[in-house]
Amino acid sequence: MPSIRVVLVEPKNEGNIGAVARAMRNFDVEDLVLVNPCPIGDEARKRAMHAVEVLERARTLKQLDAAVKDADLVVGTSGIDTESEKRFARIAITPRDLAQRVAPMGGTVALLFGREDYGLYEKELSKCDLLVAIPASKVYPILNISHAATIVLYELFAAKATKKRPRPASGLEKEKLHEALSALLQATNYPAHKDARTKIMFRRLMGRAVPSKWEFHALMGVLQRATKRIKKLEETH
Amino acid sequence: MPSIRVVLVEPKNEGNIGAVARAMRNFDVEDLVLVNPCPIGDEARKRAMHAVEVLERARTLKQLDAAVKDADLVVGTSGIDTESEKRFARIAITPRDLAQRVAPMGGTVALLFGREDYGLYEKELSKCDLLVAIPASKVYPILNISHAATIVLYELFAAKATKKRPRPASGLEKEKLHEALSALLQATNYPAHKDARTKIMFRRLMGRAVPSKWEFHALMGVLQRATKRIKKLEETH
Repeated sequence: MPSIRVVLVEPKNEGNIGAVARAMRNFDVEDLVLVNPCPIGDEARKRAMHAVEVLERARTLKQLDAAVKDADLVVGTSGIDTESEKRFARIAITPRDLAQRVAPMGGTVALLFGREDYGLYEKELSKCDLLVAIPASKVYPILNISHAATIVLYELFAAKATKKRPRPASGLEKEKLHEALSALLQATNYPAHKDARTKIMFRRLMGRAVPSKWEFHALMGVLQRATKRIKKLEETH
Repeated sequence: MPSIRVVLVEPKNEGNIGAVARAMRNFDVEDLVLVNPCPIGDEARKRAMHAVEVLERARTLKQLDAAVKDADLVVGTSGIDTESEKRFARIAITPRDLAQRVAPMGGTVALLFGREDYGLYEKELSKCDLLVAIPASKVYPILNISHAATIVLYELFAAKATKKRPRPASGLEKEKLHEALSALLQATNYPAHKDARTKIMFRRLMGRAVPSKWEFHALMGVLQRATKRIKKLEETH
């Protein structure tokens, strides 16, 4: 995964800058560059929450060029996507596509976010290697800048981290579960013509749910308990 | 795709409420419910931008129960995920997993977002069919509430165009299933100290598996049959 730099081009609202800083730290990104920003004060620090450090370490530059000249890939974000090939300069990929392309890279990737009202100018877009647009409502596709940054950073983070889940039950354990169901069906004199279908239904359901080891044991307990209760009552009958 | 409802539980910051409204409209979601919110004023409207309507149409309720009682799936969001199997009530899936599971559903899915400082209380979490946690930095995993909502809504929006699955069981049907499990546990004299945990385990398992109507009926059949068999044997004992 490359190192990620967030570049805000002429942001006008300090609250948004703080919110972007927070989103950056939420996804382990620390390198913030501000090109001709509005003044930064208490509102920015408040919205940054535990990411004030990201805000304080941010570099402020006068020119976009200086912010991207050492980057290995310059990515522009755009609220407006186009399907017109003639406006090819505006053709964008999704944040997920971006993450997949960027994940195997090294070096530095600069993510450019434009002004809250006008976004990035054509001249700025023309400096980008890639454009990203977030799939959104046709009625109101323009996201808040910190929301847009959050989604792009989230996708980049998700592409590198595959989250650990609790240990799933093993194949052997799952077979025991299916045997326990089978024993219960038998104990309840389950109709023969439904038997096979019900077992497959249960197998598919568990296949989708992917029970953890703990869930497997708890479920086994319920099934075996019911079977044992029936058998014991039958014996002493 | 089901209809999505966003439920903010005791939000304390009106700016966040406005930002959530904007994110909702960005992803074509209109149904906002506020449970015991802070007062809503100019800051909320400012942050909502072109989604003031979502804000104005929001329903304000005093109790969470009233906000979710007609929902077919109740999803809690949690900043804290756990890998501990013993704390299974906190085991969460990713927003992407959620979107894949929810896409084939109809009905209403309620997404719960908790307080900015404390999130959702245990009692509130226990009412959820599913928990979602956003994969994030270990250093600072707590996202701003509108950022968290943005990511979940974005994933649901992105998953919209997926293939049709069989009709899932409704919320009412699933409650019947949980009642049937409860009756079986009782019939087997299930230990009281395990009872609540087992019921939540089953709720989460079903939440992840998203049973179809047919699977619901088959599973109900198995549970009810076992309970009846035990009761009949007890009666004639």
